[in-house]
Amino acid sequence: MIIVFTGNGKGKTTAAFGQAIRALGQGKKVLIIQFIKGSFRSGEEFFTKKLRIIKGGKGFVGILGDKLPFSEHKKAAQKTLKLAAQKIKSKKYDLIVLDEINVAVNLKLIKEIDVLKILKGIRTNLRQSASNLRQSALVVILTGRSAPKSFIKQADLVTEMKEVKHPFKKGVRAKKGIEF
Amino acid sequence: MIIVFTGNGKGKTTAAFGQAIRALGQGKKVLIIQFIKGSFRSGEEFFTKKLRIIKGGKGFVGILGDKLPFSEHKKAAQKTLKLAAQKIKSKKYDLIVLDEINVAVNLKLIKEIDVLKILKGIRTNLRQSASNLRQSALVVILTGRSAPKSFIKQADLVTEMKEVKHPFKKGVRAKKGIEF
Repeated sequence: MIIVFTGNGKGKTTAAFGQAIRALGQGKKVLIIQFIKGSFRSGEEFFTKKLRIIKGGKGFVGILGDKLPFSEHKKAAQKTLKLAAQKIKSKKYDLIVLDEINVAVNLKLIKEIDVLKILKGIRTNLRQSASNLRQSALVVILTGRSAPKSFIKQADLVTEMKEVKHPFKKGVRAKKGIEF
Repeated sequence: MIIVFTGNGKGKTTAAFGQAIRALGQGKKVLIIQFIKGSFRSGEEFFTKKLRIIKGGKGFVGILGDKLPFSEHKKAAQKTLKLAAQKIKSKKYDLIVLDEINVAVNLKLIKEIDVLKILKGIRTNLRQSASNLRQSALVVILTGRSAPKSFIKQADLVTEMKEVKHPFKKGVRAKKGIEF
């Protein structure tokens, strides 16, 4: 199953994380791969003894304080995508979260077509495992705003997290343990 | 801070749960109060040694297999709301999730005006604690589709989880550890 959490509202990564914890609670094997550094925080990492998180991203791209050349971000993201493809093929996991992968595509750190190839590979495997009921089907969650239409087309479940109201616009500061 | 996760898409309760785990990971005191039974599953309860969940709801209301009279559902929901008001006033928690409270209002199990009174009370306390920086401000998350406009007006952060694609409509069955 391919799930996409997209949109400009809060809750995309948090929902993926909640989903990961739920799956862990049911004894599933879970892997989180971060394409943009920083979206998972210390609060989540407190629970990482069982939850594997691979931090592929090299910080926030192109915003204040980012001194890394774009080519370095690109190299890191492409390496992360290659790793993600391997992990998906490994069949070692029940749930893999590709956190902020939509953003990595929008920033042109990785190519839409390369992610699409992976998604189509998952679809093919899912069809095969559907005919073999003993094999449990992999779930892959893609997060990040502005998901490419091609990803939505491949997905089984898509939720758009739409911003209705945002505290920063009202001048409230980020609060540790709450900002997400 | 008052947060509302609403909309017809998947991820509302999951995002609230993810938020709760994140807060726990940062040493905060967290309480989840369920107004409709069944939205939190075994996967989440695996982590409940530290996460307190109060199950106020008495099952799914008015759907297949519900043999409980409406008055019983109503009594249970009103008792739960009273408890929620107490817990909010107790100042023992940093984060309180009122799970599916929007749905309880829409089903007329509890009154919109009674919830609104609680929200206005939180706003008043937040203003007071803002002038006393040593006191950490309570965060309350309300979940459930079709949040009343009055709740959105009181909230600081509102995300609408909008359904773009749903697997059930394609005939895929619910999958343990994934359906949410």
